[in-house]
Amino acid sequence: MVPKDMAPAIGVFDSGFGGLTVLRALIERFPRARFAFLGDTARLPYGSKSRRTIARYAAQSAQFLVREQGAEFLVIACNTASALALDAIQDAVPVPVLGVIEPGAKASRAASQTGDVLVVATEATVHSHAYAAACTAQGLRVLEKACPLLVPLVEEGWTDHPVTAEVIEIYLNELRAEAESRGMNPDTLVLGCTHYPLLRPLFEGAVRPGAKVIDSAEAVAQAAARQLGSNVALAEPRAAAETKIRCFATDSVEKFERLGSRFLGRPVGHVELIDLGD
Amino acid sequence: MVPKDMAPAIGVFDSGFGGLTVLRALIERFPRARFAFLGDTARLPYGSKSRRTIARYAAQSAQFLVREQGAEFLVIACNTASALALDAIQDAVPVPVLGVIEPGAKASRAASQTGDVLVVATEATVHSHAYAAACTAQGLRVLEKACPLLVPLVEEGWTDHPVTAEVIEIYLNELRAEAESRGMNPDTLVLGCTHYPLLRPLFEGAVRPGAKVIDSAEAVAQAAARQLGSNVALAEPRAAAETKIRCFATDSVEKFERLGSRFLGRPVGHVELIDLGD
Repeated sequence: MVPKDMAPAIGVFDSGFGGLTVLRALIERFPRARFAFLGDTARLPYGSKSRRTIARYAAQSAQFLVREQGAEFLVIACNTASALALDAIQDAVPVPVLGVIEPGAKASRAASQTGDVLVVATEATVHSHAYAAACTAQGLRVLEKACPLLVPLVEEGWTDHPVTAEVIEIYLNELRAEAESRGMNPDTLVLGCTHYPLLRPLFEGAVRPGAKVIDSAEAVAQAAARQLGSNVALAEPRAAAETKIRCFATDSVEKFERLGSRFLGRPVGHVELIDLGD
Repeated sequence: MVPKDMAPAIGVFDSGFGGLTVLRALIERFPRARFAFLGDTARLPYGSKSRRTIARYAAQSAQFLVREQGAEFLVIACNTASALALDAIQDAVPVPVLGVIEPGAKASRAASQTGDVLVVATEATVHSHAYAAACTAQGLRVLEKACPLLVPLVEEGWTDHPVTAEVIEIYLNELRAEAESRGMNPDTLVLGCTHYPLLRPLFEGAVRPGAKVIDSAEAVAQAAARQLGSNVALAEPRAAAETKIRCFATDSVEKFERLGSRFLGRPVGHVELIDLGD
Protein backbone atom coordinates (compact mmCIF):
# COMPACT_ATOMS: atom_id res chain seq x y z
CA MET A 1 0.00 0.00 0.00
CA VAL A 2 2.83 2.35 0.80
CA PRO A 3 5.47 2.73 -1.92
CA LYS A 4 8.77 1.20 -0.94
CA ASP A 5 10.66 4.48 -0.95
CA MET A 6 8.03 6.63 0.75
CA ALA A 7 7.39 6.97 4.43
CA PRO A 8 3.69 6.69 5.25
CA ALA A 9 1.43 9.18 7.00
CA ILE A 10 0.43 7.47 10.22
CA GLY A 11 -2.54 8.53 12.31
CA VAL A 12 -2.60 7.67 16.01
CA PHE A 13 -5.78 7.96 18.01
CA ASP A 14 -6.45 7.85 21.75
CA SER A 15 -9.24 9.07 24.01
CA GLY A 16 -6.59 10.98 25.97
CA PHE A 17 -2.89 11.64 25.64
CA GLY A 18 -1.58 8.38 27.15
CA GLY A 19 -1.35 7.08 23.58
CA LEU A 20 1.62 9.40 23.09
CA THR A 21 3.69 6.47 24.44
CA VAL A 22 2.49 4.53 21.39
CA LEU A 23 3.37 7.47 19.13
CA ARG A 24 6.82 7.55 20.74
CA ALA A 25 7.38 3.85 20.00
CA LEU A 26 6.16 4.38 16.42
CA ILE A 27 8.50 7.34 15.87
CA GLU A 28 11.44 5.18 16.89
CA ARG A 29 10.41 2.63 14.25
CA PHE A 30 9.37 5.11 11.55
CA PRO A 31 11.46 8.25 11.97
CA ARG A 32 10.76 9.26 8.37
CA ALA A 33 6.97 9.04 8.64
CA ARG A 34 4.57 11.95 9.11
CA PHE A 35 2.40 11.56 12.20
CA ALA A 36 -0.94 13.00 13.24
CA PHE A 37 -2.03 12.26 16.80
CA LEU A 38 -5.55 12.93 18.05
CA GLY A 39 -6.55 12.81 21.71
CA ASP A 40 -10.33 13.00 22.10
CA THR A 41 -9.87 14.67 25.49
CA ALA A 42 -13.29 16.36 25.49
CA ARG A 43 -15.08 13.03 25.58
CA LEU A 44 -12.85 10.91 27.80
CA PRO A 45 -13.07 8.65 29.67
CA TYR A 46 -14.31 6.23 27.01
CA GLY A 47 -14.20 3.40 29.57
CA SER A 48 -17.51 4.34 31.19
CA LYS A 49 -19.44 4.78 27.93
CA SER A 50 -21.53 2.36 25.90
CA ARG A 51 -20.10 0.44 22.95
CA ARG A 52 -22.32 2.38 20.56
CA THR A 53 -21.15 5.75 21.85
CA ILE A 54 -17.50 4.68 21.82
CA ALA A 55 -17.85 3.40 18.25
CA ARG A 56 -19.34 6.72 17.15
CA TYR A 57 -16.63 8.79 18.86
CA ALA A 58 -13.81 6.58 17.60
CA ALA A 59 -15.15 6.53 14.03
CA GLN A 60 -15.38 10.34 13.99
CA SER A 61 -11.83 10.58 15.30
CA ALA A 62 -10.52 8.08 12.77
CA GLN A 63 -12.24 9.95 9.93
CA PHE A 64 -10.63 13.18 11.06
CA LEU A 65 -7.19 11.59 10.91
CA VAL A 66 -7.78 10.01 7.50
CA ARG A 67 -9.84 12.69 5.74
CA GLU A 68 -8.39 15.85 7.23
CA GLN A 69 -4.85 14.72 7.99
CA GLY A 70 -4.31 12.26 5.16
CA ALA A 71 -3.40 9.30 7.38
CA GLU A 72 -2.72 6.16 5.29
CA PHE A 73 -2.42 3.89 8.29
CA LEU A 74 -4.17 4.15 11.66
CA VAL A 75 -3.05 2.97 15.06
CA ILE A 76 -5.70 2.92 17.79
CA ALA A 77 -3.73 3.63 20.95
CA CYS A 78 -6.85 3.58 23.13
CA ASN A 79 -7.49 0.28 24.87
CA THR A 80 -11.22 0.84 25.20
CA ALA A 81 -11.67 1.76 21.54
CA SER A 82 -9.42 -1.14 20.47
CA ALA A 83 -11.50 -3.51 22.57
CA LEU A 84 -14.97 -2.30 21.66
CA ALA A 85 -14.80 -0.39 18.39
CA LEU A 86 -12.04 -1.78 16.14
CA ASP A 87 -14.59 -3.15 13.64
CA ALA A 88 -16.52 0.12 13.61
CA ILE A 89 -13.32 2.07 12.95
CA GLN A 90 -12.29 -0.30 10.18
CA ASP A 91 -15.72 0.18 8.59
CA ALA A 92 -15.44 3.97 8.90
CA VAL A 93 -12.15 4.49 7.08
CA PRO A 94 -10.55 3.03 3.91
CA VAL A 95 -7.08 2.48 5.42
CA PRO A 96 -5.55 -0.31 7.53
CA VAL A 97 -6.32 -0.01 11.24
CA LEU A 98 -4.23 -1.58 13.99
CA GLY A 99 -5.48 -1.83 17.59
CA VAL A 100 -3.33 -1.93 20.69
CA ILE A 101 -4.57 -5.14 22.30
CA GLU A 102 -3.84 -7.97 19.88
CA PRO A 103 -0.16 -7.00 19.43
CA GLY A 104 0.28 -7.13 23.22
CA ALA A 105 -1.28 -10.58 23.34
CA LYS A 106 0.91 -11.84 20.48
CA ALA A 107 4.05 -10.44 22.10
CA SER A 108 3.09 -12.25 25.31
CA ARG A 109 2.67 -15.49 23.40
CA ALA A 110 6.17 -15.06 21.99
CA ALA A 111 7.64 -14.17 25.40
CA SER A 112 6.00 -16.67 27.72
CA GLN A 113 7.51 -20.09 28.35
CA THR A 114 4.93 -21.23 30.90
CA GLY A 115 1.94 -19.96 28.90
CA ASP A 116 0.67 -18.10 31.98
CA VAL A 117 0.40 -14.34 31.64
CA LEU A 118 -0.58 -11.48 33.97
CA VAL A 119 -2.14 -8.27 32.68
CA VAL A 120 -2.30 -4.94 34.51
CA ALA A 121 -4.57 -2.24 33.10
CA THR A 122 -7.19 0.34 33.99
CA GLU A 123 -10.51 -0.67 35.49
CA ALA A 124 -12.34 -0.11 32.20
CA THR A 125 -9.89 -2.23 30.20
CA VAL A 126 -10.00 -5.07 32.72
CA HIS A 127 -13.78 -4.84 32.85
CA SER A 128 -13.88 -5.34 29.07
CA HIS A 129 -11.72 -8.50 29.40
CA ALA A 130 -10.27 -7.61 26.01
CA TYR A 131 -6.74 -8.71 26.95
CA ALA A 132 -8.08 -11.92 28.47
CA ALA A 133 -9.90 -12.71 25.23
CA ALA A 134 -6.90 -11.84 23.05
CA CYS A 135 -4.47 -13.82 25.23
CA THR A 136 -6.82 -16.80 25.41
CA ALA A 137 -7.04 -16.73 21.60
CA GLN A 138 -3.22 -17.08 21.64
CA GLY A 139 -3.52 -20.20 23.79
CA LEU A 140 -2.37 -18.44 26.96
CA ARG A 141 -3.81 -18.62 30.46
CA VAL A 142 -4.32 -15.12 31.72
CA LEU A 143 -5.20 -13.19 34.86
CA GLU A 144 -6.01 -9.47 34.74
CA LYS A 145 -5.89 -6.84 37.47
CA ALA A 146 -7.19 -3.28 37.49
CA CYS A 147 -4.65 -0.84 38.94
CA PRO A 148 -6.65 2.40 39.14
CA LEU A 149 -3.98 4.34 41.06
CA LEU A 150 -1.32 4.07 38.38
CA VAL A 151 -2.72 6.52 35.81
CA PRO A 152 -3.10 9.28 38.44
CA LEU A 153 0.42 8.54 39.75
CA VAL A 154 1.85 8.88 36.23
CA GLU A 155 -0.13 12.06 35.59
CA GLU A 156 1.15 13.46 38.92
CA GLY A 157 4.65 12.88 37.54
CA TRP A 158 5.54 10.33 40.23
CA THR A 159 7.01 7.88 37.71
CA ASP A 160 10.12 7.31 39.82
CA HIS A 161 8.66 7.82 43.29
CA PRO A 162 8.83 5.48 46.28
CA VAL A 163 5.04 5.74 46.70
CA THR A 164 4.52 4.49 43.14
CA ALA A 165 7.01 1.65 43.67
CA GLU A 166 5.08 0.67 46.81
CA VAL A 167 1.72 0.80 45.02
CA ILE A 168 3.07 -1.39 42.19
CA GLU A 169 4.45 -3.84 44.75
CA ILE A 170 1.04 -4.04 46.48
CA TYR A 171 -0.82 -4.57 43.19
CA LEU A 172 1.64 -7.22 41.94
CA ASN A 173 1.60 -9.07 45.25
CA GLU A 174 -2.19 -9.25 45.12
CA LEU A 175 -2.10 -10.37 41.50
CA ARG A 176 0.57 -13.04 42.10
CA ALA A 177 -1.27 -14.37 45.16
CA GLU A 178 -4.44 -14.69 43.07
CA ALA A 179 -2.50 -16.40 40.24
CA GLU A 180 -0.93 -18.82 42.71
CA SER A 181 -4.31 -19.69 44.18
CA ARG A 182 -5.39 -20.65 40.66
CA GLY A 183 -2.34 -22.87 40.15
CA MET A 184 -0.83 -20.54 37.55
CA ASN A 185 2.90 -20.06 37.04
CA PRO A 186 3.10 -16.69 35.26
CA ASP A 187 6.38 -15.54 33.70
CA THR A 188 5.11 -12.57 31.67
CA LEU A 189 3.47 -9.29 32.68
CA VAL A 190 1.59 -7.23 30.10
CA LEU A 191 1.39 -3.47 30.69
CA GLY A 192 -2.10 -3.04 29.22
CA CYS A 193 -2.43 0.72 29.52
CA THR A 194 -0.74 3.42 27.48
CA HIS A 195 0.29 5.26 30.65
CA TYR A 196 2.25 2.32 32.03
CA PRO A 197 5.32 2.44 29.75
CA LEU A 198 6.42 5.37 31.93
CA LEU A 199 6.43 2.94 34.85
CA ARG A 200 8.32 0.23 33.00
CA PRO A 201 11.52 0.57 35.09
CA LEU A 202 9.49 0.26 38.31
CA PHE A 203 7.60 -2.76 36.93
CA GLU A 204 10.85 -4.39 35.80
CA GLY A 205 12.21 -3.92 39.30
CA ALA A 206 9.08 -5.45 40.83
CA VAL A 207 8.58 -8.62 38.76
CA ARG A 208 10.23 -11.88 39.77
CA PRO A 209 13.71 -12.58 38.35
CA GLY A 210 13.47 -13.83 34.76
CA ALA A 211 9.89 -12.61 34.27
CA LYS A 212 9.31 -10.54 31.14
CA VAL A 213 7.50 -7.21 30.96
CA ILE A 214 5.55 -6.63 27.72
CA ASP A 215 4.90 -3.01 26.92
CA SER A 216 1.86 -2.81 24.67
CA ALA A 217 3.06 0.49 23.14
CA GLU A 218 6.25 -1.22 21.98
CA ALA A 219 4.27 -4.30 20.86
CA VAL A 220 1.93 -2.26 18.64
CA ALA A 221 4.89 -0.43 17.06
CA GLN A 222 6.48 -3.80 16.24
CA ALA A 223 3.20 -4.99 14.73
CA ALA A 224 2.98 -1.80 12.63
CA ALA A 225 6.53 -2.41 11.38
CA ARG A 226 5.56 -5.94 10.33
CA GLN A 227 2.43 -4.68 8.58
CA LEU A 228 4.03 -1.72 6.82
CA GLY A 229 7.14 -3.67 5.95
CA SER A 230 10.57 -3.28 7.37
CA ASN A 231 11.77 -1.48 4.23
CA VAL A 232 9.53 1.44 5.11
CA ALA A 233 10.41 1.24 8.76
CA LEU A 234 14.13 1.16 8.28
CA ALA A 235 14.80 3.03 5.03
CA GLU A 236 17.09 6.02 5.43
CA PRO A 237 16.65 6.59 9.12
CA ARG A 238 16.87 10.14 10.24
CA ALA A 239 17.07 11.52 13.75
CA ALA A 240 13.72 10.92 15.44
CA ALA A 241 13.85 14.52 16.69
CA GLU A 242 13.24 15.68 13.10
CA THR A 243 10.13 13.56 12.61
CA LYS A 244 7.07 15.58 11.55
CA ILE A 245 4.29 15.37 14.16
CA ARG A 246 1.01 17.24 14.51
CA CYS A 247 -0.98 16.83 17.71
CA PHE A 248 -4.70 17.50 18.03
CA ALA A 249 -7.02 17.44 21.03
CA THR A 250 -10.71 18.10 21.51
CA ASP A 251 -10.25 19.78 24.92
CA SER A 252 -7.73 20.44 27.72
CA VAL A 253 -4.99 21.46 25.30
CA GLU A 254 -3.03 23.04 28.15
CA LYS A 255 -2.89 19.78 30.15
CA PHE A 256 -1.97 17.88 26.98
CA GLU A 257 0.93 20.24 26.28
CA ARG A 258 2.06 20.22 29.90
CA LEU A 259 1.95 16.45 30.53
CA GLY A 260 2.30 15.12 27.01
CA SER A 261 6.05 15.60 26.71
CA ARG A 262 6.65 13.04 29.48
CA PHE A 263 4.76 10.48 27.43
CA LEU A 264 6.30 11.42 24.11
CA GLY A 265 9.83 11.78 25.47
CA ARG A 266 10.19 15.18 23.78
CA PRO A 267 8.20 18.44 23.75
CA VAL A 268 4.79 17.94 22.12
CA GLY A 269 4.88 21.55 20.97
CA HIS A 270 1.66 23.28 19.99
CA VAL A 271 -1.45 21.13 20.33
CA GLU A 272 -4.25 22.11 17.95
CA LEU A 273 -7.78 22.25 19.35
CA ILE A 274 -10.47 20.71 17.15
CA ASP A 275 -14.20 20.18 17.59
CA LEU A 276 -15.72 16.80 16.74
CA GLY A 277 -19.15 17.67 18.17
CA ASP A 278 -21.00 16.07 21.09
CA MET B 1 -41.05 27.97 52.67
CA VAL B 2 -41.25 24.63 54.38
CA PRO B 3 -44.05 24.32 56.97
CA LYS B 4 -42.75 24.09 60.49
CA ASP B 5 -44.01 20.58 61.09
CA MET B 6 -43.08 19.10 57.73
CA ALA B 7 -39.76 17.69 56.68
CA PRO B 8 -38.72 18.98 53.26
CA ALA B 9 -37.88 17.00 50.14
CA ILE B 10 -34.21 17.72 49.52
CA GLY B 11 -32.49 17.14 46.20
CA VAL B 12 -28.73 16.59 46.13
CA PHE B 13 -26.82 16.78 42.88
CA ASP B 14 -23.26 15.81 41.97
CA SER B 15 -21.45 14.96 38.75
CA GLY B 16 -20.43 11.68 40.37
CA PHE B 17 -21.16 9.92 43.64
CA GLY B 18 -18.64 11.75 45.86
CA GLY B 19 -21.51 14.03 46.84
CA LEU B 20 -22.93 11.14 48.86
CA THR B 21 -20.73 12.49 51.69
CA VAL B 22 -22.83 15.65 51.51
CA LEU B 23 -26.02 13.57 51.50
CA ARG B 24 -24.70 11.74 54.56
CA ALA B 25 -24.10 15.00 56.43
CA LEU B 26 -27.58 16.22 55.41
CA ILE B 27 -29.25 13.01 56.61
CA GLU B 28 -27.66 13.49 60.03
CA ARG B 29 -29.18 16.99 60.18
CA PHE B 30 -32.53 16.16 58.57
CA PRO B 31 -33.35 12.54 59.40
CA ARG B 32 -37.05 13.16 58.69
CA ALA B 33 -36.53 14.59 55.21
CA ARG B 34 -37.02 12.75 51.93
CA PHE B 35 -33.90 12.77 49.77
CA ALA B 36 -33.29 12.34 46.07
CA PHE B 37 -29.65 12.13 45.01
CA LEU B 38 -28.56 12.37 41.38
CA GLY B 39 -25.04 11.55 40.16
CA ASP B 40 -24.57 12.60 36.53
CA THR B 41 -22.03 9.81 36.09
CA ALA B 42 -22.49 9.57 32.31
CA ARG B 43 -21.13 13.05 31.78
CA LEU B 44 -18.41 13.33 34.41
CA PRO B 45 -15.86 14.71 34.84
CA TYR B 46 -17.42 18.19 34.75
CA GLY B 47 -14.04 19.72 35.61
CA SER B 48 -12.70 19.52 32.07
CA LYS B 49 -15.81 20.94 30.37
CA SER B 50 -16.74 24.50 29.44
CA ARG B 51 -18.87 26.69 31.71
CA ARG B 52 -21.71 26.64 29.16
CA THR B 53 -21.75 22.83 28.97
CA ILE B 54 -21.56 22.47 32.75
CA ALA B 55 -24.42 24.96 33.17
CA ARG B 56 -26.57 22.98 30.71
CA TYR B 57 -25.82 19.62 32.38
CA ALA B 58 -26.34 20.99 35.89
CA ALA B 59 -29.61 22.75 34.96
CA GLN B 60 -30.97 19.51 33.43
CA SER B 61 -30.01 17.60 36.55
CA ALA B 62 -31.54 20.19 38.87
CA GLN B 63 -34.76 20.16 36.84
CA PHE B 64 -34.96 16.38 37.14
CA LEU B 65 -34.68 16.60 40.93
CA VAL B 66 -37.28 19.36 41.21
CA ARG B 67 -39.78 18.38 38.51
CA GLU B 68 -39.58 14.60 38.64
CA GLN B 69 -38.62 14.06 42.27
CA GLY B 70 -40.41 17.00 43.88
CA ALA B 71 -37.34 18.47 45.55
CA GLU B 72 -38.20 21.67 47.45
CA PHE B 73 -34.60 22.49 48.26
CA LEU B 74 -31.47 21.73 46.25
CA VAL B 75 -27.92 21.17 47.42
CA ILE B 76 -25.24 21.21 44.73
CA ALA B 77 -22.63 18.79 46.03
CA CYS B 78 -20.44 19.18 42.95
CA ASN B 79 -17.61 21.67 43.37
CA THR B 80 -17.33 22.39 39.64
CA ALA B 81 -21.06 23.02 39.22
CA SER B 82 -21.12 25.11 42.41
CA ALA B 83 -18.22 27.19 41.12
CA LEU B 84 -19.34 27.67 37.54
CA ALA B 85 -23.09 27.10 37.32
CA LEU B 86 -24.82 28.10 40.57
CA ASP B 87 -26.55 31.07 38.90
CA ALA B 88 -27.66 28.93 35.96
CA ILE B 89 -29.11 26.33 38.31
CA GLN B 90 -30.91 29.00 40.35
CA ASP B 91 -32.40 30.34 37.11
CA ALA B 92 -33.48 26.84 36.03
CA VAL B 93 -35.52 25.85 39.08
CA PRO B 94 -38.02 27.66 41.34
CA VAL B 95 -36.59 26.37 44.66
CA PRO B 96 -33.68 27.52 46.87
CA VAL B 97 -30.28 26.23 45.73
CA LEU B 98 -27.24 25.91 47.99
CA GLY B 99 -23.75 25.33 46.59
CA VAL B 100 -20.92 23.57 48.37
CA ILE B 101 -18.22 26.22 48.19
CA GLU B 102 -19.50 29.27 50.07
CA PRO B 103 -20.44 27.27 53.21
CA GLY B 104 -16.87 25.92 53.33
CA ALA B 105 -15.45 29.43 53.06
CA LYS B 106 -17.77 30.74 55.78
CA ALA B 107 -16.93 27.85 58.10
CA SER B 108 -13.22 28.63 57.56
CA ARG B 109 -13.84 32.27 58.45
CA ALA B 110 -15.48 31.13 61.69
CA ALA B 111 -12.67 28.66 62.45
CA SER B 112 -9.53 30.61 61.60
CA GLN B 113 -7.81 32.83 64.15
CA THR B 114 -4.90 33.85 61.92
CA GLY B 115 -7.09 34.50 58.86
CA ASP B 116 -4.82 32.25 56.77
CA VAL B 117 -6.45 29.21 55.23
CA LEU B 118 -5.24 26.27 53.12
CA VAL B 119 -7.51 24.47 50.65
CA VAL B 120 -6.99 21.01 49.19
CA ALA B 121 -9.16 19.96 46.26
CA THR B 122 -9.13 18.34 42.83
CA GLU B 123 -7.22 19.88 39.95
CA ALA B 124 -10.40 21.19 38.32
CA THR B 125 -11.64 22.86 41.52
CA VAL B 126 -8.26 24.49 42.20
CA HIS B 127 -8.05 25.58 38.58
CA SER B 128 -11.41 27.36 38.98
CA HIS B 129 -10.07 29.21 42.08
CA ALA B 130 -13.63 29.11 43.42
CA TYR B 131 -12.50 28.47 47.01
CA ALA B 132 -9.88 31.21 46.74
CA ALA B 133 -12.54 33.67 45.60
CA ALA B 134 -15.03 32.60 48.29
CA CYS B 135 -12.39 32.72 51.05
CA THR B 136 -11.05 36.07 49.87
CA ALA B 137 -14.62 37.40 49.97
CA GLN B 138 -14.66 36.35 53.66
CA GLY B 139 -11.51 38.42 54.28
CA LEU B 140 -9.23 35.38 54.47
CA ARG B 141 -5.84 34.83 52.88
CA VAL B 142 -5.89 31.53 51.08
CA LEU B 143 -3.58 29.07 49.32
CA GLU B 144 -4.99 26.19 47.28
CA LYS B 145 -3.38 22.91 46.23
CA ALA B 146 -4.57 20.27 43.78
CA CYS B 147 -4.21 16.74 45.19
CA PRO B 148 -5.08 14.57 42.18
CA LEU B 149 -4.10 11.27 43.84
CA LEU B 150 -6.64 11.49 46.65
CA VAL B 151 -9.85 10.76 44.71
CA PRO B 152 -8.35 7.58 43.17
CA LEU B 153 -7.02 6.50 46.60
CA VAL B 154 -10.49 6.94 48.12
CA GLU B 155 -12.13 5.10 45.21
CA GLU B 156 -9.59 2.28 45.65
CA GLY B 157 -10.83 2.01 49.24
CA TRP B 158 -7.45 2.96 50.72
CA THR B 159 -9.00 5.45 53.15
CA ASP B 160 -6.96 4.13 56.09
CA HIS B 161 -3.85 2.98 54.24
CA PRO B 162 -0.21 3.93 54.95
CA VAL B 163 0.26 4.89 51.29
CA THR B 164 -2.60 7.39 51.55
CA ALA B 165 -1.21 8.80 54.81
CA GLU B 166 2.15 9.24 53.08
CA VAL B 167 0.60 10.94 50.05
CA ILE B 168 -1.32 13.34 52.32
CA GLU B 169 1.87 14.09 54.25
CA ILE B 170 3.70 14.88 50.98
CA TYR B 171 0.92 17.14 49.70
CA LEU B 172 0.57 19.00 53.02
CA ASN B 173 4.32 19.47 53.36
CA GLU B 174 4.45 21.02 49.88
CA LEU B 175 1.45 23.22 50.67
CA ARG B 176 2.84 24.37 54.04
CA ALA B 177 6.26 25.12 52.53
CA GLU B 178 4.58 27.26 49.86
CA ALA B 179 2.44 29.04 52.51
CA GLU B 180 5.53 29.72 54.61
CA SER B 181 7.38 31.15 51.63
CA ARG B 182 4.50 33.61 51.25
CA GLY B 183 4.65 34.64 54.90
CA MET B 184 1.33 32.98 55.74
CA ASN B 185 0.50 31.41 59.08
CA PRO B 186 -2.36 29.03 58.24
CA ASP B 187 -4.38 27.42 61.05
CA THR B 188 -7.27 25.99 59.01
CA LEU B 189 -7.42 23.39 56.26
CA VAL B 190 -10.47 23.15 54.00
CA LEU B 191 -11.26 19.75 52.45
CA GLY B 192 -12.62 21.13 49.18
CA CYS B 193 -13.67 17.87 47.53
CA THR B 194 -16.60 15.63 48.35
CA HIS B 195 -14.34 12.56 48.40
CA TYR B 196 -12.11 13.96 51.14
CA PRO B 197 -14.43 13.56 54.16
CA LEU B 198 -13.48 9.86 53.99
CA LEU B 199 -9.87 10.95 54.58
CA ARG B 200 -10.74 13.28 57.45
CA PRO B 201 -9.04 11.12 60.14
CA LEU B 202 -5.84 11.00 58.08
CA PHE B 203 -5.95 14.76 57.48
CA GLU B 204 -6.59 15.41 61.18
CA GLY B 205 -3.54 13.31 61.97
CA ALA B 206 -1.43 15.22 59.46
CA VAL B 207 -2.21 18.87 60.27
CA ARG B 208 -0.19 20.77 62.88
CA PRO B 209 -1.44 20.64 66.49
CA GLY B 210 -4.33 23.05 66.99
CA ALA B 211 -5.06 23.44 63.28
CA LYS B 212 -8.69 22.91 62.26
CA VAL B 213 -9.96 20.74 59.44
CA ILE B 214 -13.09 22.06 57.70
CA ASP B 215 -15.10 19.41 55.92
CA SER B 216 -17.13 21.11 53.18
CA ALA B 217 -19.79 18.36 53.29
CA GLU B 218 -20.42 19.12 56.96
CA ALA B 219 -20.26 22.87 56.28
CA VAL B 220 -22.95 22.70 53.57
CA ALA B 221 -25.22 20.62 55.84
CA GLN B 222 -24.86 23.26 58.57
CA ALA B 223 -25.69 25.97 56.04
CA ALA B 224 -28.77 24.03 54.91
CA ALA B 225 -29.90 23.74 58.54
CA ARG B 226 -29.56 27.51 58.94
CA GLN B 227 -31.49 28.14 55.74
CA LEU B 228 -34.27 25.63 56.34
CA GLY B 229 -34.56 26.54 60.00
CA SER B 230 -33.51 24.49 62.97
CA ASN B 231 -37.14 23.59 63.71
CA VAL B 232 -37.26 21.54 60.51
CA ALA B 233 -33.83 20.12 61.10
CA LEU B 234 -34.43 19.01 64.64
CA ALA B 235 -38.19 18.32 64.91
CA GLU B 236 -38.98 14.78 65.97
CA PRO B 237 -35.69 13.16 65.09
CA ARG B 238 -35.88 9.59 63.95
CA ALA B 239 -33.14 7.12 63.36
CA ALA B 240 -31.20 8.23 60.29
CA ALA B 241 -31.32 4.63 59.08
CA GLU B 242 -35.07 5.09 58.40
CA THR B 243 -34.60 8.18 56.25
CA LYS B 244 -36.15 7.86 52.80
CA ILE B 245 -33.53 8.11 50.05
CA ARG B 246 -33.71 7.54 46.31
CA CYS B 247 -30.48 7.48 44.32
CA PHE B 248 -30.25 8.10 40.59
CA ALA B 249 -27.32 7.93 38.18
CA THR B 250 -26.94 8.51 34.44
CA ASP B 251 -24.36 5.70 34.01
CA SER B 252 -22.09 3.28 35.90
CA VAL B 253 -24.83 2.24 38.31
CA GLU B 254 -22.82 -0.79 39.35
CA LYS B 255 -19.81 1.29 40.44
CA PHE B 256 -22.15 3.71 42.23
CA GLU B 257 -23.77 0.88 44.17
CA ARG B 258 -20.43 -0.77 44.91
CA LEU B 259 -18.51 2.31 46.09
CA GLY B 260 -21.34 4.56 47.19
CA SER B 261 -21.97 2.92 50.55
CA ARG B 262 -18.51 3.97 51.76
CA PHE B 263 -19.41 7.58 51.04
CA LEU B 264 -22.91 7.38 52.44
CA GLY B 265 -21.94 5.34 55.49
CA ARG B 266 -24.74 2.86 54.80
CA PRO B 267 -25.84 0.74 51.81
CA VAL B 268 -27.03 2.94 48.93
CA GLY B 269 -29.39 0.19 47.87
CA HIS B 270 -30.76 0.16 44.34
CA VAL B 271 -29.53 3.00 42.14
CA GLU B 272 -31.97 3.96 39.39
CA LEU B 273 -30.55 4.62 35.93
CA ILE B 274 -31.94 7.68 34.16
CA ASP B 275 -31.18 9.31 30.81
CA LEU B 276 -30.70 13.07 30.65
CA GLY B 277 -29.52 13.02 27.01
CA ASP B 278 -26.16 14.09 25.60
